[in-house]
Amino acid sequence: MESTLTLEQQADLQKFGQRLAELRKARGWSQEKLALESGLARSYLGGVERGQRNIALLNILKLARTLECDPGALLRF
Amino acid sequence: MESTLTLEQQADLQKFGQRLAELRKARGWSQEKLALESGLARSYLGGVERGQRNIALLNILKLARTLECDPGALLRF
Repeated sequence: MESTLTLEQQADLQKFGQRLAELRKARGWSQEKLALESGLARSYLGGVERGQRNIALLNILKLARTLECDPGALLRF
Repeated sequence: MESTLTLEQQADLQKFGQRLAELRKARGWSQEKLALESGLARSYLGGVERGQRNIALLNILKLARTLECDPGALLRF
């Protein structure tokens, strides 16, 4: 975890991760299934869901398209 | 520009950049003003608006908060 993050930034990453897990589970998918469907590494997804990764735009869009949701839905937290 | 990007990914970065510029101009702000208000470097913002940067979540949220818009609005393109 980048130690230079503010508490607010750490909270934002954790909220994004929780939102991603929420949307994934709503589809009844495991992290493995989301990794398989998105082409992203399962370990990377685990880190994102734990709020340990400052995920970039292209991966946000890839996840939204994989979950077939509006990208904005991932940022609604 | 990362040469390994697909055409779709390059298009996504460009569309995000155009959306950011659209929302910035809607406030009547220059890139300098957005840089000043957000704390992000003007040169970095220029790169984002030209579609040359795969901007990360924390900076997307920072820009949305600075522009006082829903983060999802930046991803609606």
